[in-house]
Amino acid sequence: MKIGFIGLGIMGSRMAANLQKAGVQLVVYNRTKSKADELLAGGAVWADSPRQVARQVDILFTMLATPASVEATALGPDGFLDAMRSGSLWVDHSTVNPSFTRSMGEEAHQRGVRFVDAPVAGSKIPAQTAQLVIFAGGEAADVEACRPYFQSVSRAVVHVGGVGSGSAMKMVNNSLLGQTMLAFSEALVLGRSLGLTQQQLLDTLLGSTVVPPYMTAKRGKLENDDYSPEFPLQWMQKDLQLASQSAYEQGVALPALNLAKELFMLAAQNGLAEEDFSAVYAYFSAPGK
Amino acid sequence: MKIGFIGLGIMGSRMAANLQKAGVQLVVYNRTKSKADELLAGGAVWADSPRQVARQVDILFTMLATPASVEATALGPDGFLDAMRSGSLWVDHSTVNPSFTRSMGEEAHQRGVRFVDAPVAGSKIPAQTAQLVIFAGGEAADVEACRPYFQSVSRAVVHVGGVGSGSAMKMVNNSLLGQTMLAFSEALVLGRSLGLTQQQLLDTLLGSTVVPPYMTAKRGKLENDDYSPEFPLQWMQKDLQLASQSAYEQGVALPALNLAKELFMLAAQNGLAEEDFSAVYAYFSAPGK
Amino acid sequence: MKIGFIGLGIMGSRMAANLQKAGVQLVVYNRTKSKADELLAGGAVWADSPRQVARQVDILFTMLATPASVEATALGPDGFLDAMRSGSLWVDHSTVNPSFTRSMGEEAHQRGVRFVDAPVAGSKIPAQTAQLVIFAGGEAADVEACRPYFQSVSRAVVHVGGVGSGSAMKMVNNSLLGQTMLAFSEALVLGRSLGLTQQQLLDTLLGSTVVPPYMTAKRGKLENDDYSPEFPLQWMQKDLQLASQSAYEQGVALPALNLAKELFMLAAQNGLAEEDFSAVYAYFSAPGK
Amino acid sequence: MKIGFIGLGIMGSRMAANLQKAGVQLVVYNRTKSKADELLAGGAVWADSPRQVARQVDILFTMLATPASVEATALGPDGFLDAMRSGSLWVDHSTVNPSFTRSMGEEAHQRGVRFVDAPVAGSKIPAQTAQLVIFAGGEAADVEACRPYFQSVSRAVVHVGGVGSGSAMKMVNNSLLGQTMLAFSEALVLGRSLGLTQQQLLDTLLGSTVVPPYMTAKRGKLENDDYSPEFPLQWMQKDLQLASQSAYEQGVALPALNLAKELFMLAAQNGLAEEDFSAVYAYFSAPGK
Repeated sequence: MKIGFIGLGIMGSRMAANLQKAGVQLVVYNRTKSKADELLAGGAVWADSPRQVARQVDILFTMLATPASVEATALGPDGFLDAMRSGSLWVDHSTVNPSFTRSMGEEAHQRGVRFVDAPVAGSKIPAQTAQLVIFAGGEAADVEACRPYFQSVSRAVVHVGGVGSGSAMKMVNNSLLGQTMLAFSEALVLGRSLGLTQQQLLDTLLGSTVVPPYMTAKRGKLENDDYSPEFPLQWMQKDLQLASQSAYEQGVALPALNLAKELFMLAAQNGLAEEDFSAVYAYFSAPGK
Repeated sequence: MKIGFIGLGIMGSRMAANLQKAGVQLVVYNRTKSKADELLAGGAVWADSPRQVARQVDILFTMLATPASVEATALGPDGFLDAMRSGSLWVDHSTVNPSFTRSMGEEAHQRGVRFVDAPVAGSKIPAQTAQLVIFAGGEAADVEACRPYFQSVSRAVVHVGGVGSGSAMKMVNNSLLGQTMLAFSEALVLGRSLGLTQQQLLDTLLGSTVVPPYMTAKRGKLENDDYSPEFPLQWMQKDLQLASQSAYEQGVALPALNLAKELFMLAAQNGLAEEDFSAVYAYFSAPGK
Repeated sequence: MKIGFIGLGIMGSRMAANLQKAGVQLVVYNRTKSKADELLAGGAVWADSPRQVARQVDILFTMLATPASVEATALGPDGFLDAMRSGSLWVDHSTVNPSFTRSMGEEAHQRGVRFVDAPVAGSKIPAQTAQLVIFAGGEAADVEACRPYFQSVSRAVVHVGGVGSGSAMKMVNNSLLGQTMLAFSEALVLGRSLGLTQQQLLDTLLGSTVVPPYMTAKRGKLENDDYSPEFPLQWMQKDLQLASQSAYEQGVALPALNLAKELFMLAAQNGLAEEDFSAVYAYFSAPGK
Repeated sequence: MKIGFIGLGIMGSRMAANLQKAGVQLVVYNRTKSKADELLAGGAVWADSPRQVARQVDILFTMLATPASVEATALGPDGFLDAMRSGSLWVDHSTVNPSFTRSMGEEAHQRGVRFVDAPVAGSKIPAQTAQLVIFAGGEAADVEACRPYFQSVSRAVVHVGGVGSGSAMKMVNNSLLGQTMLAFSEALVLGRSLGLTQQQLLDTLLGSTVVPPYMTAKRGKLENDDYSPEFPLQWMQKDLQLASQSAYEQGVALPALNLAKELFMLAAQNGLAEEDFSAVYAYFSAPGK
């Protein structure tokens, strides 16, 4: 079994490293080659284009930033999809909208390529420690074929349903992430305006029943006003946009999600695009600074 | 020590029952007398007005619906505050805004009455099982004086700070409750529109890191589309209004909270005012039905 | 007939000047005395407190900033209401919420004082040129008694209905002002982001059927990025707050108004509180600057 | 000069009729043929597909509902674009987002076809009475070539700039339309909740400086609670979605526009999708009915 991995950003590089650590022989490609240095030092093989990866592998994992970058990498000049062997398997870890996922699944199937959408919940640290949760969509046999690899990068695999269902669950998951971070930020702003201290608020709220457990891991960022990115704010904003787009396609109203989308955009315009998404708190604490 | 309790609604009646169970001799008053029947059968003494309660007690607990009802009960005709003995203690469990709380504290102090604001986190079931969390604001000695009584109704007491700080923490707590319920409702609507089943969504999300733990207790309501009230939607809406008012007084913007406030109002106008606040999900699932 | 005028800010000073120009003998009071200098030079009589004004006049006009300042000036220490003669008339030009207006009307009537709420539409320039529109609420005879004075400061008087109805119409009017300014600001931001120039947008939109006519008078501010206040942003924000409060009291949802309220608050926190309310455009054009 | 017209809905049928009235010989196509009956009776020639239209004409006008329908009609099976003669001109009246418009312009230019985007402001009645306003984007010579035809259907032509700029201005225009209708609806709801009558509100506000002039034409609908469509609510919602999508592409935040988008979606879910967009008022007046 030869395995390819395309997309070595914050998430992809760590996931690929965990595959390598588990003994998987990787063929890798990334737009910026230097990000592959450690993997290459560890024995991975470089390919000069997505297409060159595809020619050599049985399973190809991708972890890219947006639907547009997935489409360009799969179907653009030097794209990988036309070069994949019949019966090989494309596993897309990227966070994209379900209708896009399904269109990619169609493109794959038309070329005799199997397809699994497998977006992950968890950011930089869980990627590093192989503690991600994978939401997988696709045929049971195809998801099974991925399982050993998934187990090397995650603590849990949820096989949600057919192609696109992994993406659907990821949309849901990240809509909660964005909205609860915004809610928590506003709650802190409210509490501080009323004379409570940040420490008091964090002591009381983190671990309580009204705050999602993931928030505890953000405490250091909020306390130190240091928003070095685990999950960059602009990607959170993008995910809310994809969720909003999905809701439009399905004809359902999500007013609070759409407001969150816009408030993250205001924060992004305010210089916080590349900070951790928890920096939306900084924006509301001091909107003009 | 004689203890008074005014306000025997969903919360107050259960809290008073737990005090009684702990051996406390109560003097009680409620606008609708029938709600006191069980307490009276258990040995509590009825008083014909708030004023009549005040004359007989050392500590007076109140649990009322709104700032207006607290003000009327304390300071209106037959109000209790003028009748309280010097050095006695008024403990207000009502959820009201901190500036109002402080004005009540002032009114009490001017009459030689001590004051603690002690709003509670938790709704019908925790009230019944003495599993509330109490956010207390006031002098340390006064909070200590309450502690045995608090312990009979709660699983934890947080002494937040001076008068008004309990109310402040409660505003923060309930702003999170309202916003996360709305976020969860929208997430379910999104997921279902994308073809996921409600059961799948609840199985995956409840207990996960992106959902506040309290949500698990709402599962039955969502699954059975039965929103018998533990915490009525109209009171949730009121609390968001009080939080919004507090933010205005402090000059801070809370756009997401204010939108939540309005969406709960739309749900209330839609016939859901007296249902559990989780019924906001029903509103977004089928807005016109 | 002796006439009093209390509150000589941007609006009040200009309205009083127009009364004086029409030959009315004024007794005036303002917290900052220097703002009365021109009126005094023109023959107005200074009084040392609101109470001192009330003692001397048959009709008393007030133009104050908030419900709290109206209440303090009317009913606080040295307040005017207890000193007004029986049968005299209090005309409140302040923009306040209808339930507050009605409570002031009650206070007046209990003292044998007649009451008209008469908030004005229009800001600095219309105040100066006597081109305001007055929304009057009260008994027909009382509104008639005001008419000669109203005509000296306005181009139109709308007798809306009983006490409080003037305030109600003002809430409606200013909710439109705030929301349409926000909508126009976003429209300009959208257009410019898509490559249209500000001049092109203003040329096409101002005077068109989709933009309220008042916007044309704001062109200079937008073009010159000079937001010297005609109607300060923080007062617009306050009016939206009062409208929101009124809607809550009446049990109706106004989600867009509430969002506008919060976005003006964000702009205010961003250093624009004392600029003209059209500066909300500056906020959205460059949120972090 | 032979002229084609594809898309004979509420708008297209009326625009085509005005061209015919001006003596233009039309070749027409519509998905539902019966909508062409009157034009055919008036001498228009039917073509069996978009492609068949293209083969016969020098200028081709399209008026379609969504980007997807434009793309399918131009580039799908039997699409017209490949069949257009070199040097011929495609004029797209559809309301679509500028980035889509530019991609269509590219597709046209690659085939030697000239392109003008020419969305229109105005709905059913102005379409019928040739009182539309056309926002045109494209080369000056191409816009000039259209002018005689534009003049037969409109009262004004604004040549905004290059390809895509007409669409950009249309996005701006309709964002104002949607947001001001929502603002006006909320204002009426507020006023009525405060005891003002609808007639009083309409008398006072319509024609005033704070309300866009187009609103006067909606009076009958509001008064009679009869929302027979001139501009269907679901298309307004779609236009807000396109504007939101455009803002995302450009990286600017438009929170109020996005909320409006969602509130129109709630109204659409509530059974009002095919009513006039002013029916959003009905939704807020009685959300649950």
